Amino acid sequence: MSAGRFDTDVYAQRLHTAAAAAGAAGLAGLVITPGYDLRYLVGSRAQTFERLTALVLPASGEPTVVVPRLELASLKESALTELPVAVRDWVDGDDPYQLVAEALGGAPVATAVTDAMPALHLLPLADVLGVVPVLATDVLRRLRMIKDAAEIDALRKAGAAIDRVHARVPEFLVPGRTEAEVAADIAKAIVDEGHSEVAFIIVGSGPHGADPHHECSDRELRAGDIVVVDIGGPYEPGYNSDSTRTYSIGDPEPEVARRYAVLQRAQQAAVEAVRPGITAEQVDATARDLLAAEGLADAFVHRTGHGIGLSVHEEPYIVAGNDLTLEEGMAFSVEPGVYFPGQWGARIEDIVIVTADGALPVNNRPHELVVVPAGPAAAG
Amino acid sequence: MSAGRFDTDVYAQRLHTAAAAAGAAGLAGLVITPGYDLRYLVGSRAQTFERLTALVLPASGEPTVVVPRLELASLKESALTELPVAVRDWVDGDDPYQLVAEALGGAPVATAVTDAMPALHLLPLADVLGVVPVLATDVLRRLRMIKDAAEIDALRKAGAAIDRVHARVPEFLVPGRTEAEVAADIAKAIVDEGHSEVAFIIVGSGPHGADPHHECSDRELRAGDIVVVDIGGPYEPGYNSDSTRTYSIGDPEPEVARRYAVLQRAQQAAVEAVRPGITAEQVDATARDLLAAEGLADAFVHRTGHGIGLSVHEEPYIVAGNDLTLEEGMAFSVEPGVYFPGQWGARIEDIVIVTADGALPVNNRPHELVVVPAGPAAAG
Repeated sequence: MSAGRFDTDVYAQRLHTAAAAAGAAGLAGLVITPGYDLRYLVGSRAQTFERLTALVLPASGEPTVVVPRLELASLKESALTELPVAVRDWVDGDDPYQLVAEALGGAPVATAVTDAMPALHLLPLADVLGVVPVLATDVLRRLRMIKDAAEIDALRKAGAAIDRVHARVPEFLVPGRTEAEVAADIAKAIVDEGHSEVAFIIVGSGPHGADPHHECSDRELRAGDIVVVDIGGPYEPGYNSDSTRTYSIGDPEPEVARRYAVLQRAQQAAVEAVRPGITAEQVDATARDLLAAEGLADAFVHRTGHGIGLSVHEEPYIVAGNDLTLEEGMAFSVEPGVYFPGQWGARIEDIVIVTADGALPVNNRPHELVVVPAGPAAAG
Repeated sequence: MSAGRFDTDVYAQRLHTAAAAAGAAGLAGLVITPGYDLRYLVGSRAQTFERLTALVLPASGEPTVVVPRLELASLKESALTELPVAVRDWVDGDDPYQLVAEALGGAPVATAVTDAMPALHLLPLADVLGVVPVLATDVLRRLRMIKDAAEIDALRKAGAAIDRVHARVPEFLVPGRTEAEVAADIAKAIVDEGHSEVAFIIVGSGPHGADPHHECSDRELRAGDIVVVDIGGPYEPGYNSDSTRTYSIGDPEPEVARRYAVLQRAQQAAVEAVRPGITAEQVDATARDLLAAEGLADAFVHRTGHGIGLSVHEEPYIVAGNDLTLEEGMAFSVEPGVYFPGQWGARIEDIVIVTADGALPVNNRPHELVVVPAGPAAAG
């Protein structure tokens, strides 16, 4: 395995399966511009620019990569040069959308495009193809959702790394320091513990914890704060960690402790509900119903979880209305939270993998509210 | 001015002009998801996620921002909260595309979308609107291309900062060091000299210089190398620098010096050709014809330049076939290059702004091939 990707035969198999899925969906093929789908299919980290780069994967026949001649070198880091994929390079003045149509066997044809394709490329492509494409998400969904052994291994390594960061978070949470100062320490720890970079850091202290998407600010931590710490990043070859724990600076008030205990039971119940055959919305309902039974329905303002892999947020989404049946190999977060605007919030998040025996958590830090010292005296 | 954006009245004016341009194009309005267009119009650095965030700008009437409730806080850093823009927040289970249609006055309507909108949002939006949108590029082109005084000031500051980095590059180019080591020094210098981050660093030594898009490698510099250094990054409030100079480790061979001198004349001629009323392709032809007259037509394998602003590459493109007439306030690179595969390459790049008097370069380092010492002795 190269540092940045799996062995080439992994990608050969993925291309084969994706082409078959496109055929089964009645499509002439898939058109994949740079993004997570391209990275999944051929290990390429190319980026989208104004010049079109696209993998054209016909339902049958040889795939083609359409690439600006100036960017030919970008193919080298991927598995593309080792796969049976034709290279059609183009120069300014050529019509790359026409090259895509030719690689599909001519227009008009029904195709699907990666969800990352920008309008800049999608609209001229639709013109040349003569048919507005559909999203490739449906075709690639099962492939992307069901993680293989190498992907599960990568997710477990990422999970262990972010657990090591959470183990160090209490030392960063000192009253008088700002959320931003804490976040800087966490950023360094995320990289020190083996991630290739930081993807996101939420340090939501006191009332900021009541905003689930707060990032960090110059607010200083103080005794009595409840602090939500939601952190993660990619771990080579690019699979992400994502874990939330909630901290209390000094002992929490009894009502905070009571509500947190309900949240902890809700998160645990949702994790325990995970198994092949249950639906995504049933997992969501498990956490939601338990919180509702304790009067906290209105405090839980977001879905229970999201899939994770090369992307921090991907399918399956653990949300009301998603009747997708869970299968072995799916990986997603279970992260209920409670939010009290202007006061405080709390969230507990683990990434879990669906196995025949139920949920395999890749995060294994304790789930209790972590009490850290409220002042210098407590540290003695 | 906030650190990250211009004053609110700048954005109010831009929204007004953009809405008028949409109306003049016969459109009901524009739909702008996160990206450079959104940043240009309202100063927002929001990113695109799986939940739709979109500014809906009707040709007449009040604009609306459709935003996930979870991401409402992200509006604060932009000018949106200070502008007459309605906020329509939504939660999981709502149909945000329907909210966009309502903000446009109902479907079906002809609309234009930002070129950054991903297929993930564009295809469902097209379904709800009942008409496939067109690219907003045509509507926003003049607005984005013609820089105002504040933008020109920002580009000049960015240009001066990257000039200071180029002034330091010779000290980094020591034989025996790798391109990657040089790039690390340049990265630090880019930030030290005031950029908010690094956008790109090309250190193309020896044969690597013959690949215009080579980035950097573990190749060690050696005496006799010609080294292409193409660097840049954003400078608050987000306008980019981009400048290339070419260096020679030790004195160049006579034929290298001869060809470089031709390139320098071609770059200078193209800069001198810039003025209101000339077309983009005429500027390209000026450099190209001069190189061709000296037998170097085949060595110049890319366009002469690209526009620059919030994005490193934007309109106007200085390329054959682009008959756009240049106007005062346009900003773009003039960067002819010559490339000899397996041997060496050279490029000279300045960002220039079109003024009534011709090109105003924002980069002002000398254009000659910069000779650096080939060994320790030469440094004494």
